[in-house]
Amino acid sequence: MNPAYQRLKSRAARIATLGEAAAMLGWDAAAMMPPGGGAARGEQMAALAGLMHEMATAPEVADDLAAAEADGEWDQANLALLRHAHLRSTALPTALVEASSLANSTCEKIWREARRSSDFAMVRPALEEVVRLQRETAQALSAVLGLSPYDALMDGFQRGVTAAEVEPIFDAYETFLAEALPRALELQAARGPATPLPGPFPVEKQKAMAQAMSARMGLEYSHARLDESTHPFCGGIPSDIRITTRYQAQDVAQALLGVLHETGHALYERGLPQGFRRQPVGEAAGMAAHESQSLIIEMQACRGDHFLGFLGRELHATYGGVAGPYGAENLAKLWRRVDRGFIRVDADEITYPAHVILRFRLERALIAGDLAVADLPGAWAEGLHRLLGITPPDDARGCLQDIHWHDGAYGYFPSYTLGAMAAAQLMNAARAATPGLDEALGQGDAAPLLGWLRKHVHGQGSLLGFQDLMRAATGKPLDPSDFTAHLTRRYLTA
Amino acid sequence: MNPAYQRLKSRAARIATLGEAAAMLGWDAAAMMPPGGGAARGEQMAALAGLMHEMATAPEVADDLAAAEADGEWDQANLALLRHAHLRSTALPTALVEASSLANSTCEKIWREARRSSDFAMVRPALEEVVRLQRETAQALSAVLGLSPYDALMDGFQRGVTAAEVEPIFDAYETFLAEALPRALELQAARGPATPLPGPFPVEKQKAMAQAMSARMGLEYSHARLDESTHPFCGGIPSDIRITTRYQAQDVAQALLGVLHETGHALYERGLPQGFRRQPVGEAAGMAAHESQSLIIEMQACRGDHFLGFLGRELHATYGGVAGPYGAENLAKLWRRVDRGFIRVDADEITYPAHVILRFRLERALIAGDLAVADLPGAWAEGLHRLLGITPPDDARGCLQDIHWHDGAYGYFPSYTLGAMAAAQLMNAARAATPGLDEALGQGDAAPLLGWLRKHVHGQGSLLGFQDLMRAATGKPLDPSDFTAHLTRRYLTA
Repeated sequence: MNPAYQRLKSRAARIATLGEAAAMLGWDAAAMMPPGGGAARGEQMAALAGLMHEMATAPEVADDLAAAEADGEWDQANLALLRHAHLRSTALPTALVEASSLANSTCEKIWREARRSSDFAMVRPALEEVVRLQRETAQALSAVLGLSPYDALMDGFQRGVTAAEVEPIFDAYETFLAEALPRALELQAARGPATPLPGPFPVEKQKAMAQAMSARMGLEYSHARLDESTHPFCGGIPSDIRITTRYQAQDVAQALLGVLHETGHALYERGLPQGFRRQPVGEAAGMAAHESQSLIIEMQACRGDHFLGFLGRELHATYGGVAGPYGAENLAKLWRRVDRGFIRVDADEITYPAHVILRFRLERALIAGDLAVADLPGAWAEGLHRLLGITPPDDARGCLQDIHWHDGAYGYFPSYTLGAMAAAQLMNAARAATPGLDEALGQGDAAPLLGWLRKHVHGQGSLLGFQDLMRAATGKPLDPSDFTAHLTRRYLTA
Repeated sequence: MNPAYQRLKSRAARIATLGEAAAMLGWDAAAMMPPGGGAARGEQMAALAGLMHEMATAPEVADDLAAAEADGEWDQANLALLRHAHLRSTALPTALVEASSLANSTCEKIWREARRSSDFAMVRPALEEVVRLQRETAQALSAVLGLSPYDALMDGFQRGVTAAEVEPIFDAYETFLAEALPRALELQAARGPATPLPGPFPVEKQKAMAQAMSARMGLEYSHARLDESTHPFCGGIPSDIRITTRYQAQDVAQALLGVLHETGHALYERGLPQGFRRQPVGEAAGMAAHESQSLIIEMQACRGDHFLGFLGRELHATYGGVAGPYGAENLAKLWRRVDRGFIRVDADEITYPAHVILRFRLERALIAGDLAVADLPGAWAEGLHRLLGITPPDDARGCLQDIHWHDGAYGYFPSYTLGAMAAAQLMNAARAATPGLDEALGQGDAAPLLGWLRKHVHGQGSLLGFQDLMRAATGKPLDPSDFTAHLTRRYLTA
């Protein structure tokens, strides 16, 4: 192997190992850490981020990249990704990276309190600092990558997708939504109300069942943990996955379906190619690809009619009481209920993209400097009203609801909806290639689906860009009509 | 401030920040991590250890140390400690540090399984590698520090104490024990048996009470967590303390007293001088000093007659049933019971030093090359028999019981008994200087004791060496007769 490329791979592995340490500490900060640990944790994360940045931008890296050659498509793709990462890293001075990491973790800590008391003013100064540093970051990246500042941030989450591509897809969805939402609500009303599940659902039982269902989807808990945090997420590393959720004794769905969602993310990480562990080509293909995997498990598989039948029987066996409400048809009424709501993470499949479109527009304006942080609550209210016809009663149910902006993640939100669209398209392809896939899900067996995903998505790492991955797996690039067709089948058919 | 010294302080703070990350990951590995995460965690810890070592041994450090000057006793002590740490660090090549860190975490992981199945052969190869690398480390340190190899390892845990000083103290204790143990057992028999506490003690209640009692001792849980692990410990960092314990529903004492022990360690960390955070002079004064703080809380305060009275009332209020067994006199019979046992962590105050003396002798021989790892089980049995007249029935209750040797900690064990002796001496001094200290403990109020410790021990950091710390706090260097007098009062007086 070319020695310069070999050195680059060793360095990448060492940086990734520190990144693993940071990933575990990030999980701890959200799921375990007492509040008094926050200040020191911010400094620990900043020190790690700074070191990783120093290692990635050391002068000898440029020399090695100039001299490096790689053989075979995997190593060639890996080298191309190393070059791209180097472009991104060298665009940013170490001081900016460290300041940004510290500002993010400081703001995120204040946000937890601000959200609790719905007090935007409390977090505003810290958020202004985050946005200021994000703008600076975006401009520095923009100059190097030849992308607009906002696209340069998006590129950090899902390479090769630009706001100019996303905008018409989102505008078209806004048009679809204007007709689909009233129609879905009308059909829903015609079907009659759901019967609430009897409950209560003791938290200890919920935990055990969520983990059991997650394991059924294929997640090995010898390599994973399930814990609690305010904002559910999937963290950790491929061999040590950390899923979090939150439980409410009166609501069995939120935690269970949330865990199944995070399980989709986890299965992707677990299935990444071992041979390129700690190399960029061995990583997931981006955040839209990642979200496609959580949503294919949660929305396509687990909220589909077949799996709901199985899940209802399991729920009834676990919680007892009358069997009726646990029938698939009633669960579908409960868990595929369409509603104009304020909270993104509680939104149904039809309105979810509206929440994303709102955030896409606002964060683009924040980064462009067209929107001041102080004006965010007002712009939020206006934008939500335009899309869904409702106005949030407070900031906790408005611009304080999500962690992303308060933790420095700008350009991430579009991935949710691109992922939802990709999930529908991948499910169609998996179904076409895998006879009996739905019948297996009806028995609580996700192995056929997982087998297809392992081969066509997980095991591909970052070998292909997002559009090429979609092409190789489904025969065409991202096609939003698979998603709207899915919505039409599920919600707009009497 | 002298710029060379300023640079050294900045570097020390950065290294300490990475050390904090490693401390949190170490806690996670013991308390949270699924088994499948072990391999990657070992690599993460090794990468951090390697980086810290690189930063500590960079060529410019020697130049800065040569040019550095410090003003005032704290900064002068800090600079002296930086020089000492540099001597230790530069004695070891990076490859040895990384290999040792990896060998330790690999062995520790196997040990958990080997102890469960009492299978010394399972861990032997990994332990041989740990010992081999520890010998190499000890020899490299020995050459630089002008200490024997074993003393050079001890110096890493408790600076300035040598095996030659410890040996006569331990030999004298062996003589004391030969008379004291039969006498204590005789008096104990004369007092009649204890009444067992009724139980059961539901684990959830135990957790809540252990945390409440720990908080009563002065530990703020906004800066701490209490979790479970196989081998209880106090980890984390001063602003984010992580205590672990293990619970048994039939035994309320083990977890409760264990948590109070770890609380003593935690209070020391919490009380270290903030102004020298992340500097060597701001750290605890060594492991013997640390153990003196856990034992002054657990053994001197909490197992003393006054606090037992309070604790008994709390236990009875929590678990109900008949009140009789919760009287202080019965709790003293239960929790100050003297016994010839196999397990160090379950040992009473009189026999505990015997367990330490055994380990001190064996690890000294392992490091000197006078004892092979393969011969450890036999040497253990022989040594224990000489000290306590008993022979372990298996290795789980013999040389597999402790984590230390399997995690690369050689030269640590003497600290336990030096700490026990120091605790008795410090308690005498605190009592003499603080009227009402025992009466306050009788009301569950540890504030007078904690106030004295904050001033005379915790807040002193590493300003003074162990003996000078003892001298400043108690008017004399370590004097084992305070400990034997304490034992005589508590166990050998009819």
